[in-house]
Amino acid sequence: MPSHNGPGGLAPDSSPVALLILDVINTFDFPGAEQLLQRALPMADRLAELKRRCGELDIPAIYVNDHFGRWRSDFSALVEYCRKTEFRGREVVEKVLPRDNDYFVFKPMHSGFYQTTLELLLQHLGSKRLVITGLASNICVLCTANDAHMRGYELWLPKDGMAARSDVEQTYAELHFRKVLSAKVMPIAQLPLERMAQGEPHRNA
Amino acid sequence: MPSHNGPGGLAPDSSPVALLILDVINTFDFPGAEQLLQRALPMADRLAELKRRCGELDIPAIYVNDHFGRWRSDFSALVEYCRKTEFRGREVVEKVLPRDNDYFVFKPMHSGFYQTTLELLLQHLGSKRLVITGLASNICVLCTANDAHMRGYELWLPKDGMAARSDVEQTYAELHFRKVLSAKVMPIAQLPLERMAQGEPHRNA
Amino acid sequence: MPSHNGPGGLAPDSSPVALLILDVINTFDFPGAEQLLQRALPMADRLAELKRRCGELDIPAIYVNDHFGRWRSDFSALVEYCRKTEFRGREVVEKVLPRDNDYFVFKPMHSGFYQTTLELLLQHLGSKRLVITGLASNICVLCTANDAHMRGYELWLPKDGMAARSDVEQTYAELHFRKVLSAKVMPIAQLPLERMAQGEPHRNA
Amino acid sequence: MPSHNGPGGLAPDSSPVALLILDVINTFDFPGAEQLLQRALPMADRLAELKRRCGELDIPAIYVNDHFGRWRSDFSALVEYCRKTEFRGREVVEKVLPRDNDYFVFKPMHSGFYQTTLELLLQHLGSKRLVITGLASNICVLCTANDAHMRGYELWLPKDGMAARSDVEQTYAELHFRKVLSAKVMPIAQLPLERMAQGEPHRNA
Repeated sequence: MPSHNGPGGLAPDSSPVALLILDVINTFDFPGAEQLLQRALPMADRLAELKRRCGELDIPAIYVNDHFGRWRSDFSALVEYCRKTEFRGREVVEKVLPRDNDYFVFKPMHSGFYQTTLELLLQHLGSKRLVITGLASNICVLCTANDAHMRGYELWLPKDGMAARSDVEQTYAELHFRKVLSAKVMPIAQLPLERMAQGEPHRNA
Repeated sequence: MPSHNGPGGLAPDSSPVALLILDVINTFDFPGAEQLLQRALPMADRLAELKRRCGELDIPAIYVNDHFGRWRSDFSALVEYCRKTEFRGREVVEKVLPRDNDYFVFKPMHSGFYQTTLELLLQHLGSKRLVITGLASNICVLCTANDAHMRGYELWLPKDGMAARSDVEQTYAELHFRKVLSAKVMPIAQLPLERMAQGEPHRNA
Repeated sequence: MPSHNGPGGLAPDSSPVALLILDVINTFDFPGAEQLLQRALPMADRLAELKRRCGELDIPAIYVNDHFGRWRSDFSALVEYCRKTEFRGREVVEKVLPRDNDYFVFKPMHSGFYQTTLELLLQHLGSKRLVITGLASNICVLCTANDAHMRGYELWLPKDGMAARSDVEQTYAELHFRKVLSAKVMPIAQLPLERMAQGEPHRNA
Repeated sequence: MPSHNGPGGLAPDSSPVALLILDVINTFDFPGAEQLLQRALPMADRLAELKRRCGELDIPAIYVNDHFGRWRSDFSALVEYCRKTEFRGREVVEKVLPRDNDYFVFKPMHSGFYQTTLELLLQHLGSKRLVITGLASNICVLCTANDAHMRGYELWLPKDGMAARSDVEQTYAELHFRKVLSAKVMPIAQLPLERMAQGEPHRNA
């Protein structure tokens, strides 16, 4: 598979599939974050590897991230803010640091689609097939997946590419994805990325 | 409590609280509808009583309903369609028939807020406090409640004013309402309607 | 050209082009309506003829209409309301009465796309090419055309299929359509409807 | 009037009025940009002065800006990109450089409200009164003002705080603002900023 990434180049602006990474740039500075952090750390290792594979296949990665009330921040400023040693989330952030050819979208509320530019970015990329990952499975992943489903996207939800605070929350999120959203739910290792990356990006005529 | 409804009159166009009734006008003509119908029938009796109490307190009722692909229909035509004897949902529909002073909003997808007039109707009414009821607890009620939460509404979700296909779906829906949406979840009988109906309707300055 | 309309049948639910008719169901019961009405009456005759031609080509007609604060009304109730002899708009309404196979969308504000089901209806029909007509050229037609342009629709704006209160308003609306929205602006007689109706309806994969 | 800006401090996150500045961070690298640039240069001087006065009154300034297809950019990276000597817009950008306490919102299309975070930012600030400025009067300013009007904002549109390519475009934009949007249109010098900054920020209860 030929890579369009030359030295220092960027991934192409067009792909039938996109990887969404929700709220991993995070201070983990809220009540109950400890529980989530325990599951988020191993998840971050797996996401880093998933991102690497996606990069090889020219599948774009889009960080869709809360700004934690920092309305004036750039995304890069937010990353630096969350990397500060004082925050518990530092280790997660370090594992999934964005790179130059990644995209990002600020989301002020739970869903990545609510009053954000995400839908237009996906239209620009021609992506109608989404792999949704990140935090937390039953909150922002669930709300974003709901909105993606109503907009007609094909959904892939890797169960070990997300994390919730508890097993019961993870379990009901997975049940919801399968039964209500007709999404494909499986471990990251079983995502057929090569096949998903094939086909033409979707273009509005 | 004085009623603003004169003889033949309509409820006033203004209230701090509104009752949403989701997808009860329904053919129940889909796979698996039988299970839902069993729970929907007793729910419909309770909803009829809730609507009656709301009417006494001048709390407006808003039917937020799928149109089942009948894009050309009026709401009244949809009601008549669903009352046809051939459909299993007939009995539910008969129990919660809309009346002249009710409102309705067509929703083409799961959430009552997605590409509908609901938000503007609630603005018109000045309602920032919602009681959400109807079908199904873990599908359209959940998606509508998510969207209402992101828009800043105060949420009341009576557990016996909705129905799901199974206990596990009802249980995770209630868990989601309480934990993720900070909603109040209780039986209909415990809704403090008199108190909820007090206070000024919310007006954009 | 074969018609898919059997006896008593409906136009097919699918077409690359759709005809939007804005706010012609109207009481004309507002300050300054007299001026608009003078231009709206001959426009209504031309729209009736345009609708007839569209019907022959199976191009769906969608009434996109204000409800004039009547939040509880059906569309058919609104039509009857506006036909009342006391209203000056009666004559316009009579000329462009909706028929069974027409669609309608309530719009609470100026743009037909703002918090309405229009975008989903057009998706359902597969229509990415719009003929926008009705009242008033520089208000609801302009706002609807702006929103359609941002959503990627191909726009056809027949100058004698709309009306404004004055020549200067009509003139700036046409200038805006051509220069800002890259729309095609021409008399109704020059709309190449046969050609526009060809091609596949647009389907999201 | 006490300023909440300490040394190095930021303007407070709350104000009844906000200043929107559209598309002034611009390459002016498109056909016909020369005409616009001639009018944009003196406008930029006046906007700089308006921003200074707003700063003294703790009125927040929000850059609402196209990203010119640079989906991967931060706003600060976009500013640096547009300051490159090769671009004709350099001089405009230098006059209205954003500062630390300014806000920014990426808008992918013409309207600042279409699929952006602007509405939520204004809700966060409690601002229901908008001063809209920037480029171009009859394109992005007009589309943004339309959308603001439908959302119930009070609009102030300073005629010398915006620019169009030609007098006729400026004239019809002003006509539209006054007649269709009921906006206040006047020179910057006549904006009653002190009075506009008074009153409580608007809070959803």
